[in-house]
Amino acid sequence: MAMLLGPKWRLGRLTKRATPTAALLMHQSPDEMTVLEMLGSTNLRQSTPEDYRILREIVNSFERYSGVGNDIQLTLAEHAANELIMCEKTREYAKGIMDPSKFVPGYHIFQVLHTVRKSPLFQILSKMPKGAALKVHDTSMCSLRSVIELTYRENLWVCTTQDGCRVEAFRFAKEKPKDVQHAGGEWQPMEKLRELRGERNLRKYLLVRFSMYPLASFTTNAHAWRHMMGIFDLLDGLLQYAPLWGDYYYNALKEFYADGVQYLEVRTVLPQLYCLDGSLLPKRQTVQIYKDTLEQFKKENPGFIDSKLIYAPIRHVQPEVVGQHVKECTELNKEFPGFVVGFDLVGQEDVGHPLSQFAEELLKLPDHINFYFHAGQTNWYGSHVDQNLLDAIVLGTKRISHGYTITKHPVLMRLAKYLNIALEVCPVSNQVLQLGSDYRNHPAATLIAENVPMVIASGNPAFWRAAPLSHDFYMAFLGIAPMNADLKFLKRTAKNSIRYSSLKDEGKAEAMGKWKRKWDQWVANIAAQKENQENK
Amino acid sequence: MAMLLGPKWRLGRLTKRATPTAALLMHQSPDEMTVLEMLGSTNLRQSTPEDYRILREIVNSFERYSGVGNDIQLTLAEHAANELIMCEKTREYAKGIMDPSKFVPGYHIFQVLHTVRKSPLFQILSKMPKGAALKVHDTSMCSLRSVIELTYRENLWVCTTQDGCRVEAFRFAKEKPKDVQHAGGEWQPMEKLRELRGERNLRKYLLVRFSMYPLASFTTNAHAWRHMMGIFDLLDGLLQYAPLWGDYYYNALKEFYADGVQYLEVRTVLPQLYCLDGSLLPKRQTVQIYKDTLEQFKKENPGFIDSKLIYAPIRHVQPEVVGQHVKECTELNKEFPGFVVGFDLVGQEDVGHPLSQFAEELLKLPDHINFYFHAGQTNWYGSHVDQNLLDAIVLGTKRISHGYTITKHPVLMRLAKYLNIALEVCPVSNQVLQLGSDYRNHPAATLIAENVPMVIASGNPAFWRAAPLSHDFYMAFLGIAPMNADLKFLKRTAKNSIRYSSLKDEGKAEAMGKWKRKWDQWVANIAAQKENQENK
Repeated sequence: MAMLLGPKWRLGRLTKRATPTAALLMHQSPDEMTVLEMLGSTNLRQSTPEDYRILREIVNSFERYSGVGNDIQLTLAEHAANELIMCEKTREYAKGIMDPSKFVPGYHIFQVLHTVRKSPLFQILSKMPKGAALKVHDTSMCSLRSVIELTYRENLWVCTTQDGCRVEAFRFAKEKPKDVQHAGGEWQPMEKLRELRGERNLRKYLLVRFSMYPLASFTTNAHAWRHMMGIFDLLDGLLQYAPLWGDYYYNALKEFYADGVQYLEVRTVLPQLYCLDGSLLPKRQTVQIYKDTLEQFKKENPGFIDSKLIYAPIRHVQPEVVGQHVKECTELNKEFPGFVVGFDLVGQEDVGHPLSQFAEELLKLPDHINFYFHAGQTNWYGSHVDQNLLDAIVLGTKRISHGYTITKHPVLMRLAKYLNIALEVCPVSNQVLQLGSDYRNHPAATLIAENVPMVIASGNPAFWRAAPLSHDFYMAFLGIAPMNADLKFLKRTAKNSIRYSSLKDEGKAEAMGKWKRKWDQWVANIAAQKENQENK
Repeated sequence: MAMLLGPKWRLGRLTKRATPTAALLMHQSPDEMTVLEMLGSTNLRQSTPEDYRILREIVNSFERYSGVGNDIQLTLAEHAANELIMCEKTREYAKGIMDPSKFVPGYHIFQVLHTVRKSPLFQILSKMPKGAALKVHDTSMCSLRSVIELTYRENLWVCTTQDGCRVEAFRFAKEKPKDVQHAGGEWQPMEKLRELRGERNLRKYLLVRFSMYPLASFTTNAHAWRHMMGIFDLLDGLLQYAPLWGDYYYNALKEFYADGVQYLEVRTVLPQLYCLDGSLLPKRQTVQIYKDTLEQFKKENPGFIDSKLIYAPIRHVQPEVVGQHVKECTELNKEFPGFVVGFDLVGQEDVGHPLSQFAEELLKLPDHINFYFHAGQTNWYGSHVDQNLLDAIVLGTKRISHGYTITKHPVLMRLAKYLNIALEVCPVSNQVLQLGSDYRNHPAATLIAENVPMVIASGNPAFWRAAPLSHDFYMAFLGIAPMNADLKFLKRTAKNSIRYSSLKDEGKAEAMGKWKRKWDQWVANIAAQKENQENK
């Protein structure tokens, strides 16, 4: 083959000897340069229709064998399941081509959340064992319904303005808090507000207040970020109450597990939790609560793999503060080795300091604690913020959170591939935070085509009332990946999430085993469902 | 350097010997693999801050020297002009980073058309000698104001519905046309309608009717296309009147020339023009009128380079019809060699037949007549339509119109680069036809970074009331290219438009000379303007 397709190759010989199988053979010793040379040394305009079909098939199959998932060989059962999955996917895709106004990934998630839930494809994906959720933020993990349940706990006070119409803050305390940080704000017991506004009304109100709804379209990325940071602030007084922190985390593990996630890496700002008397616990207590809760959850759910923490304080600080965070992280890792495993900086990149300003401090982190940097969550191409992507890589990051801008940096994209740095792609987050609108234009399509390491992640799913990870999988599978991306793509993506986790090799092997058991069961269920349908 | 940065390279040696200059040296014999290996063989986490700065500079400069325009060396005068241009660009960019709601390329063109016109950067760009407009469609070239002037010609009848409220069709005729193709339609003399509705009202109405306004956002790409095809249909009766066809073209040349364009390749459906008595002229007459008009224009404007035709009939036909078009094109090229120089198929790709269905017929076109295919103007990744991109390349196209989807096909992107196939990037068209919204997400950013051959084009600028080419340059320069893309980028893009034209080598040399004279004058003017400002 090599000789046949080498630079001296001529069209006449191809037509005699190359067949569609040739493309497959060529893929097995892939050499893109040969394809380039082959086409470059040919006068394509003198092709016969047969020459043209063969050349087309060669390039086409070369492309087909380059994308994410094409290294996967499906089992017989997986083949059967794949047929059903692709039948549902093709149905939605074809409907969209026929009438684009019917194509769900062309819309803002807020407009189609309920439509998605009814989709048979989504229902299949929501049950899929997805492996790990590698990017999720500490206080935006749990469904809002479960957060609202927490407002029924004892001793909760609420600060309101506008005669009780606007909730500004929460606080657990024995007595009415004295400090009021909002002009015209007044503290009252939560029960009292509930009586005043009516329980149903208040629940409805909080559902909006704790989310990015109903604003499907903000003017700008900056506006969306301000709104989101407001939700985090509002939740702080509620969730940072020490007796509640563990319950929130436990519930998050439960909800993610139910959504097909067996392993979580949580980016946490590690707040100092407060007690009923207002006293603050040291940060190590926050970690301890995480750890105790996790042990409990693992005991009760033997199918669950594990969870780890990435210490991820806010980036809008001076370098010396980052230096302190690096020290804290080092100490916490000493005390909780194998649990506090990484470092990151979070918050809106566009208005924060670039990573390069923190480099000196960051490089002090011992190299057994990994960097998992947020970078490139911007569309200001060529700005100093955009350069975070470069800095994340040169600083030795193990994964990149978002990296939305990476396709504008082909050198960095190839570096990520060569250095095996995975991108945490968060489709829904990117839309809600106004980086893109139509999923079909998401840059991850290029990552999929180039087979750049990537995982699908969510980030703050609660704030958009999405499932922990399933909506992101649905949008990625139907809206971003090519039409023919199938179970191989899904399997590779799920496996990647374990492969690019912070687990050590033995841990990965064990995790892969636990995932595999669930995967095989899921596949068997779909195959059975298909058989049932056929027998009807 | 090669040895220093080769695979055996170690960090310790770099810190001693490599300096930022090293990056420049390395660029001069660029070898991306060496950069990859260099970073891959290093434990980046053990970098000193100095190591980190050097590595960062190496990767950064490698990136910087890879993009479009970085092969250009600016003259002293160009340097001075560049300073002023970049000052204006940076002002707009910085304002946007500060408050994204102020960044013009974040909006739909219809919302900011007037804002753009007031921008000093736009004013500079609108005077820039842009070289060639390589993609423009026959009846959407002229400003709507000038089209409305054509409705004052003698013998024009207009068919209206809704009691004269909706204009449905135009026709030149001695007597009232008898056929009515719109339910409830009635023909009346144009003057009568003008009296009936009032001249100013009617002008206003037609300005909307002949454009995509005021619908800044359609539901879907398909909806936008239907609307656009409606404008073409409406204009047919007006513009396909034989005595008027040449005037329209003459005016287009004039308007493009005034916008800094010295050469045009027009994609034309080559309609059979009609006479006052309703008789139809043969297609060759349409070409003859183009040719005569062009000769006249060239005589009157010696600075103008030339114009050529690409025969581009509608793609929504059966293969045998394409076969007829191929024959027509062959004959017209025989009769007008050097004027009818290429072939293409136009109309919405998503609903048309894929190129592959026409391959057999297309390959019958003699290979001295070039293909300039529309392809990849879609976001249905992996659909049969999306494959047009592959087919255009394998069929030997010289340029690709749009190729919006090419970044999802890295193999094809590298093929385009290797085979020197230029992409005709049409930023505003892509937005108006609902492929993308925010210019900062336009895929051409990747083409720019990868230095894939590209030109900036407009397509149907009249329908969005944009300047012939300047709005596209403005959006590409400010919204799509990186912040630091400067006069080098603009110069490369202008030169590319001549380089990738259908001109023969001698023609290109002459064209480049004519362009260069205007370019130098423009640069001198900006430099003088800058000096004036400094002396104030």
